[in-house]
Amino acid sequence: MSYAELPDTNALFAKLTFDAAGLIPVIVQDSATKDVLMFAFANREAVSLTCETGYAHYFSRSRNKLWKKGEESGHLQKVHDILTDCDEDVLIYLVSQEGCACHEGYRSCFFRDLAGNVILPRLKDPKDIYR
Amino acid sequence: MSYAELPDTNALFAKLTFDAAGLIPVIVQDSATKDVLMFAFANREAVSLTCETGYAHYFSRSRNKLWKKGEESGHLQKVHDILTDCDEDVLIYLVSQEGCACHEGYRSCFFRDLAGNVILPRLKDPKDIYR
Repeated sequence: MSYAELPDTNALFAKLTFDAAGLIPVIVQDSATKDVLMFAFANREAVSLTCETGYAHYFSRSRNKLWKKGEESGHLQKVHDILTDCDEDVLIYLVSQEGCACHEGYRSCFFRDLAGNVILPRLKDPKDIYR
Repeated sequence: MSYAELPDTNALFAKLTFDAAGLIPVIVQDSATKDVLMFAFANREAVSLTCETGYAHYFSRSRNKLWKKGEESGHLQKVHDILTDCDEDVLIYLVSQEGCACHEGYRSCFFRDLAGNVILPRLKDPKDIYR
């Protein structure tokens, strides 16, 4: 991540479209394996902090607050790059994931298929993640 | 895709959470390369048609209608599997993409980084996609 070194980080966001609630969807992808790890929303401040610190920040709609991924669990996401789509209203964070992305103890939140089959091993007991 | 052969496809959707507008976000990932190709929304009917036909269907918020990806352009997406996340309110379609996912003629809609650098080759002139 070199966005923090750019002269004007605000210019990076000028073309992004945030929704009526000030949010933009973020797809989180493992930069090495390309596995999709999770999906979340960010507001302008969260994207800005992600650029400045190099660690993934989001906005929680249920808790109505900014959060740094892993601030409690230690399961940080180091962000290597941020991509945007043709309409510039969705982001991809390309990350190195410490431990589990999913609060249920799986590497990725996408550990089930639509038929309900679990397709990933559980790495941690959820109660050992948040103590 | 074998969902169409299941005895009760409605049961597959019973646990999914659709938002207040009846939509669920869909991340579209190339099943072979794992590249994220696009991001869209689906309603219950679109997910159902995707399961039944094996080809990706979505709901367009701007046009307020159901659409089959590639119905005009020929750039169909054959769906091999559908994953859901821990909260069962986001889907991943794992697809084989015919041609370009992006209406701007790139393989993926995520052809730019946040700094504006184009990171993918353009495969087609957009005016040759929709005639």
